[in-house]
Formats: sequence, C-alpha cells, structure tokens
Amino acid sequence: MEIGVIGLGKMGYQLTLNLMDHEYEVTAYDVNSEAVEKISTEGARPAASLADLVSQLDRPRTVWLMVPAGEIIEAVFRELLPLLEEGDRVIDGGNSHYKQSIARSEQCREKGVYFFDCGTSGGVDGARNGACVMVGGDMEAFKSIERVFKDLTVEDGYLYAGEAGSGHFLKMVHNGIEYGMMQAIAEGFEILEKSPFAYDYEKVAKVWNNGSVIRSWLMELTENAFSKDAKLEQIKGVMHSSGEGKWTVETALDLQTAAPVITMSLLMRYRSLQEDTFTGKVVAALRNEFGGHAVEKSE
Amino acid sequence: MEIGVIGLGKMGYQLTLNLMDHEYEVTAYDVNSEAVEKISTEGARPAASLADLVSQLDRPRTVWLMVPAGEIIEAVFRELLPLLEEGDRVIDGGNSHYKQSIARSEQCREKGVYFFDCGTSGGVDGARNGACVMVGGDMEAFKSIERVFKDLTVEDGYLYAGEAGSGHFLKMVHNGIEYGMMQAIAEGFEILEKSPFAYDYEKVAKVWNNGSVIRSWLMELTENAFSKDAKLEQIKGVMHSSGEGKWTVETALDLQTAAPVITMSLLMRYRSLQEDTFTGKVVAALRNEFGGHAVEKSE
Repeated sequence: MEIGVIGLGKMGYQLTLNLMDHEYEVTAYDVNSEAVEKISTEGARPAASLADLVSQLDRPRTVWLMVPAGEIIEAVFRELLPLLEEGDRVIDGGNSHYKQSIARSEQCREKGVYFFDCGTSGGVDGARNGACVMVGGDMEAFKSIERVFKDLTVEDGYLYAGEAGSGHFLKMVHNGIEYGMMQAIAEGFEILEKSPFAYDYEKVAKVWNNGSVIRSWLMELTENAFSKDAKLEQIKGVMHSSGEGKWTVETALDLQTAAPVITMSLLMRYRSLQEDTFTGKVVAALRNEFGGHAVEKSE
Repeated sequence: MEIGVIGLGKMGYQLTLNLMDHEYEVTAYDVNSEAVEKISTEGARPAASLADLVSQLDRPRTVWLMVPAGEIIEAVFRELLPLLEEGDRVIDGGNSHYKQSIARSEQCREKGVYFFDCGTSGGVDGARNGACVMVGGDMEAFKSIERVFKDLTVEDGYLYAGEAGSGHFLKMVHNGIEYGMMQAIAEGFEILEKSPFAYDYEKVAKVWNNGSVIRSWLMELTENAFSKDAKLEQIKGVMHSSGEGKWTVETALDLQTAAPVITMSLLMRYRSLQEDTFTGKVVAALRNEFGGHAVEKSE
C-alpha cells in the first residue's frame, strides 16, 4: 500500500520507518529538505513539495500529517486540501485541538475527502516500534484504511473512537490524565526527598514497578531517569507543557466538570516556570502590612 | 522455615497460602477462630492464642503481623512483645503509621527483638501470587530473613528501604501517589462522560493500556471495571479512604512540601462522602445576599 507522510520531525521520521517496516511504499515530505534526503536513504520516495507528494500517489491517496499543532498544521492543511480529490484520505496524526479537527473534517467532506483525527501516544519509541492511536472520522472510510493503524501500533493499540474530533478529544484527555499521573508521582518523590530517610530513588521506582498498585510505564520512565542521575541534579525542575493539558482544563471548564487534579497539575507547571512570583510578593507585603512580619528583599 | 502469621483477613489469609506454596511451615492465629480453622484445612498449624502461636515456634521466631492499623495492631503488639525473646523477629506487614513503627521498633530493640515495618502493595491478588514489599529495619537482621520477602513477592518486588520506619513511610507515599493517579484517571473519564462523544470506556481503557503513555495497572483495573459495568451505573461515586492518603498529606505538611495533587485527591474523596455541603449553602446564601441570585431550597 502507498502512503504519503508529511512532516519528518521526531515522530514523523520514526513513523515513516515503522511504515516501511510494514512494507508500505512511503512518499515523504518535510519543509526541511535534509530530513527528506535522510529518509530517502532509508527507502522512502522523496517529495519536493506538497504538490509533488500528492502527484506521486495513486488515487485514492492516503496522506499522514505529522506536523506541529496550531499554525503549522493549519498552513499545511490549507495548502494540501485543494490538491486532493474525492475519495482521498487525510490523517492528522498530530495533537490538533479537536474542534479544529471537526472543522477540518467538514472542509474535507465538502470535497469528498475523508479526514481522520488520530491521537498518537507512546512517544518516539512508540512511533518507531508500535504506537497507540485513537482515531475519529467516518467509520466506513476508517475500515478501508484500518490496516494502517493496525500495522503502526502495538497489539490492541488502536481504537476507532467515533465521529470526527473524537480521536483528538480522547488523546487530549489522555494527556490530561498523563499530567495528573506525572504530578502525583513527582510529588511522592518530593515527599521522599524531604523525608528523614535516605532512599535510593532508582530502587524505589524499581520496586514500585514490580507488583505494586502504582506500576506503570511512567514509573518505568521514572526508574530510567533515576538510573541516569540518582538525584536528578543535572535537571532543573522547570515543567514545560505543549498545550494539551491546557486544552483539557479549558474543555473541563466548558463542560462544567470539576477536574481539580488535572487542573492543579497544569498550574504547577506554570508555577515552575517562574523563579519568583507576584503572588508571593503580594502575600509577603500583606503579612508585613498587617503583622509586621519581615519580608525578604529582592536582590 | 517456620513462620507465625497473626491476622487472617483478606490479606493475611492469602499471604499464608502464598507462604505455604513456598514450603514454609506456618502457624496461624486470628481472633476469628473460623478463619484459623479454615486455614488449618489448607495445611497451616492452628494457634488458639498469641501465646499458643509463640509457644509453637522454634527460636529465633519469625512472626508476621497482618492486622488492621491503629488500635488493633497496637493491642496485638502489646500482647505479643512480652511473649517474644531475644533474636526473635516481628514483621508488621500492615499499613501502620511510620512513626508508630519507629516507636515499636524501639520497644523491640530494648528486648533484643528485631522489628520490620513492611509496606505491602499489590492488593489481595498480590498477597496470594506475588506482592510488592518495602521493608524498614535492621539491615543485618533483614538479611537473615530476606528469603521470606523474596519468596512472597514478584521478581524484583521487594526492597530493603532503610532504617526502621522507612518501609511504612515508603508505602504511605506509594498510597498517596496511588490517590493522585486514581483521581487523574477518574477525572479524565468524567470529562469523556460529559463530552459530545459516545465513547466505549472499556475500549478506551483497553487502547490506553496498549502502547500509550498512561498504560498502568490502575488503567488495567479501570478496563476490568468498565468490562463489568459499561457506565458504572451500579456503583455510587462515594470514595472512601483508609488513612494512608491522609497520612501522606499530613506528612507533606509537616515537611512543608507542596503536594497539591495528592492533597486534592484526598479532599475530593472527602467531598464525595457528602450529598450536600455547608460550603455550598454558604456560597449560595452569599450570592443571594449580594446579587439576589436565586437559591435552591432544601427538601
């Protein structure tokens, strides 16, 4: 089967190798021509542009988009859609907002093109060796390309989630859960770090991965991290985020759903980006105002 | 090897079967004589009292306590300790507070008895087929009974955590992390439940267990639960707790450690125990007072 891949970043590159392992004929494009050249040495057909990629594929085409969410996917989608024809399929394997995916699905439907919003989990290793995907879109059309999702994933690692948007919605919530689980694990280790005991954190994570209630892939990654740096002294506790946690919280608010742990996980990430806070200054100032409590001077 | 087991509840009974699988000669006691009789049909030697149990064991004795935390373990421990002699070992496999375990360890040391605080995870199935344990206590004495912990657990499922108290402290934090992970998972499913999409939650949990970042034993249990009751209609959303989460939060406060997600998980459990709240009444009353917003009348 033929497939076009657009976007050869961390995930797209590995996904392309994964597809080729499964005997797909991949035509690949990226704005970075070096990435295209590199993947062509692995056996993919290079494309010089979106138009070139589309022209190289037989109809009905299957095009997998693996580009950053937001402006980039929007720009790529706008350029791509006019090039496609009735019966073609577009898979957005990135982390687009589900409302954007619903909108894109409608734009595709007007042209008779099938759109699939495909949430992809499992990290770079998953993209290479077997991911987990949640796919929204037309059910009949899904069946016609189900093999692609089956081939790219681990056993039982793909789900037809429902109508357009349901795949990216599910992936968004998955990431929200991930934020909460990560923060819970991390807070636990902070309590251990401040405890009177001298734990070996790698060993702690290891024993927790063997038979405990909290055994999990995230705890395995925790074990790996501590195996490389016993106290994480080389890592600053700055927690960036790429948007899906924020979307989960915004969606929970829209749905009037109390999701305090997921929300707090996001807020703690924002807090970690600041060395000092204005909140802290205001509270310190107020304690000084009413109680004469000493303030620490800024340097 | 001989071992005495005190407490034949859900965990202790399964643990005794597990010990006997590994060729231990178990002498068993419980206040519930039916449980003692039942385990004796499985091959354990019955004991009619703590004194009877102690008298049946050759020195140096090894006694495993698997009784509820708090008053019961305290009462059992007070009765047991005077019966023991120098060189004997007591393992508290329950969920005692680590400060209690440190105190009991000291009382034992005065008599030359070795005390081990052993946090046990993995649930009833783990107790039967391979648990995960975290053990605090004297390191040399630990080595003399290490085999017991190795036999009762899954591969790599036991850890000598450090001095007295460190085992139960670790188990306490494990449970705190468990609260946070469970709440994060649960909030995610609540967002799905309020979403515009009609997800099959069993299938969602299943796909998340295969290749995703949030794959975990708790997600497997989630999958099991939804397989039995697709929308959990038979279960009320009342979240009880048995104390370890509260201890984790209290300990975090004592250590001046910000653990908001673990804390919020506990608070959401407390909230779930109430049908209505006084907080809600006060806020509704205030909105009415200042803005004339309608209040809903109690029935």
